[in-house]
Amino acid sequence: MKLVARLIVALTVALTIRSFAQDPLPSWNDTSSKKAVVAFVEKVTREGSPDFVPTAERIATFDNDGTLWAEQPMYFQFLFAVDRVKALAPQHPEWKEKEPFASLLKGDMKAALTGGEHAILEIIMATHAGMTTEQFENVVKDWIATAKHPKSGRPYIEMVYQPMLELLAYLRANGFKTYIVSGGGIEFMRPWVEKVYGIPPEQVVGSSGKLKFEMSDGKPVIRKLPEVNFIDDKEGKPVAIQLHIGRRPLAAFGNSDGDLQMLQWTAAGAGPRFCLFVRHTDAEREWAYDRDSHIGRLDKGLDEAAAKDWTVVDMKRDWKQVFPPAAK
Amino acid sequence: MKLVARLIVALTVALTIRSFAQDPLPSWNDTSSKKAVVAFVEKVTREGSPDFVPTAERIATFDNDGTLWAEQPMYFQFLFAVDRVKALAPQHPEWKEKEPFASLLKGDMKAALTGGEHAILEIIMATHAGMTTEQFENVVKDWIATAKHPKSGRPYIEMVYQPMLELLAYLRANGFKTYIVSGGGIEFMRPWVEKVYGIPPEQVVGSSGKLKFEMSDGKPVIRKLPEVNFIDDKEGKPVAIQLHIGRRPLAAFGNSDGDLQMLQWTAAGAGPRFCLFVRHTDAEREWAYDRDSHIGRLDKGLDEAAAKDWTVVDMKRDWKQVFPPAAK
Repeated sequence: MKLVARLIVALTVALTIRSFAQDPLPSWNDTSSKKAVVAFVEKVTREGSPDFVPTAERIATFDNDGTLWAEQPMYFQFLFAVDRVKALAPQHPEWKEKEPFASLLKGDMKAALTGGEHAILEIIMATHAGMTTEQFENVVKDWIATAKHPKSGRPYIEMVYQPMLELLAYLRANGFKTYIVSGGGIEFMRPWVEKVYGIPPEQVVGSSGKLKFEMSDGKPVIRKLPEVNFIDDKEGKPVAIQLHIGRRPLAAFGNSDGDLQMLQWTAAGAGPRFCLFVRHTDAEREWAYDRDSHIGRLDKGLDEAAAKDWTVVDMKRDWKQVFPPAAK
Repeated sequence: MKLVARLIVALTVALTIRSFAQDPLPSWNDTSSKKAVVAFVEKVTREGSPDFVPTAERIATFDNDGTLWAEQPMYFQFLFAVDRVKALAPQHPEWKEKEPFASLLKGDMKAALTGGEHAILEIIMATHAGMTTEQFENVVKDWIATAKHPKSGRPYIEMVYQPMLELLAYLRANGFKTYIVSGGGIEFMRPWVEKVYGIPPEQVVGSSGKLKFEMSDGKPVIRKLPEVNFIDDKEGKPVAIQLHIGRRPLAAFGNSDGDLQMLQWTAAGAGPRFCLFVRHTDAEREWAYDRDSHIGRLDKGLDEAAAKDWTVVDMKRDWKQVFPPAAK
C-alpha cells in the first residue's frame, strides 16, 4: 500500500500543478461572478480549511433550459415535439381535424397553444409516449443529430453556453459531482447530455412520464405511458433531489423562478453553500429577458438573490463568449 | 500530461498487483458460484477482450433484504416500524383501541397482521410520515445504532452477509458502480448503507412515500407525506432502474421473485450480463426458505435461473461464513 499511497500523492500534485497552470474559465470575464465561483471552489476544497467539504459531499446541481443551453424562442423539447407531430402526421390522419395538432401542422403555433397547458400536455403525450424507452432514445438521438435551431440555424447541441461547459469541467476537476436537475424530460436529455456536458445518465434528474415493464414477444421492454409521473419544477426540484440524490447540493445553478426552491434548499444547508442565477441580459449575442418573460421568468429569484447575496451572472457583462465555436 | 499519464499507469499496475496478491472473496468457498462471479468480472474488465465493457457501463444492482442483509423473522424495516409504534404510543392514546396498533402494543404481531397489506401500510404510514426528511433520518440513525435482532441479539447492521460485502468491494475494485435497488424504503436505507456497504445515498434506489417541499418558520424543509410514491418491487425494479440510473445493469443480484424482473431486464441487454440469486439454504447459520416462504419467496426465479443458466448461490455450500464477526 505504501507505493500506492505515494503514487496517489504524486498524481494529485501533478494534477494540481496542471490546474494552476491555465485559467479553467477562459470564457468568463474577470468580474465578480467568476471571482465568486473561484473563491467558493477554493474555499471548500482547501484541506484543513474550516470550510473544507469532503469530495463525496461536493454535489452541484444545474438546471438545463436557460442555464446550460438556450430556451428561446421556446423550450427546445417543445420544438422537438412539434417536429415529431409533423413526422408522425401521416400515421394520424385524424390530426388534420383535431386541435392542437391541426394548427401545429398548418404552422400556426399561436393557435395551437390557445389550449394552454392542456394543449401542451397533449402534444407531449402524443409524441413522447406509446413506444419503448429504447425506441424513444433512438428518436431523440436522430433529432438531436439533425435538427437545427430556428433562429441560429445551428444544431441544438451547439446552443449550449460555453462558459457553463467550462464551469462544469472546473467543478468536476475539483471533485464535484455534477447533476442536471431540469424541468425537461429525463428521457429527452439522457441520450445526448453525456457527450455534450460530460454528465452521465445516472446524474440526470428531470420530469418524467410513467413507465411500464412488460414482455413484448418474450423480450422485456419498458414502455412509456401517456401519463405524467413527476414534474421536476419549482417545489418539485428539491423533492427530486432528495429522491434521486439523497444529499443536499453544495452548489446550485439556475436561471428562473422555477429554480428558486432548488436554490433555497441548497442555501439552507449547514456550512458554505453556493447559489447562482444566470440572467439573460444579452439581446445581441443571445436573448434578453427576465421579470416579464413567459419562458424562464426570473422575478422572485432576482429579489431573493439580492437579499441573500447569491451570485447573478450578467451574461452581457460576465461572459466573453456565449456559444461554443461551430463544429466543422 | 505525460507525467500524469505515467503515474496513472504506475498506479493501475500497483493496484492490480495488489489485487492479485490476495483473494478478494475469502468468505466464499471455491465452488461454481465464486468461479462464475470471478470469470465474469475478469471477462468484462480485460482490455482488448471482445467482452470488454467500459467502466462507465459497469453498473451492478443489488436487492437489499435477503440479498445483502437478512430478512427473517420478518423484514427489518417492519421491525423498525413496530419499535416506532411502541415509542410513539404515549403520543397516540387512541392506538390502545385502534387496530392494528392495539394488537401490536400488546405484542400480538399475528393479530396485528390479520388486516393484511392494509394493516402493514397503516403501520408504515403512521411511523414513516408526518416528519421532515431530516427528522426521519435521525430516527433511523438512532434505531440502527441501538436496536437488536430478536433472534441473534446482534445489531441489525451486523446481520449483513460477509460474502456479499466482499463481493461489493470486489466489484468496485474492478470499476463497477454498485447500486441498491430494494423494495425497502429509500429513506430508511440511506442513513446507514454508506457506512455498512460502501454505497453512497445517490446509489440507493427503493420504495418511497410522497414528499413535499415547504417553508417551516421561514426555513425550507421536505416533509414526508402519508402517501405512497413508488413501490420498488417486481415490475417496479426495472422501472426504477430506468428512472434513477438510466442504464441497464451489467450485473444484478437478488434473492426472491421480487427481483426476477430486475434480473430479466439485466439479462436481456446486449453483450455479456451476469445474474445471481442468493438462495437461503442454511437453517443452521441463517434460515432455509425458498419456494413456499411468505417472505422472500424464490419460486419462479429458481425455475428461470435454471433455464437461463443464472448463478444460484447455495448459502450452505458456497459461503464459508455468513455474518461478519461481531464488532467489539
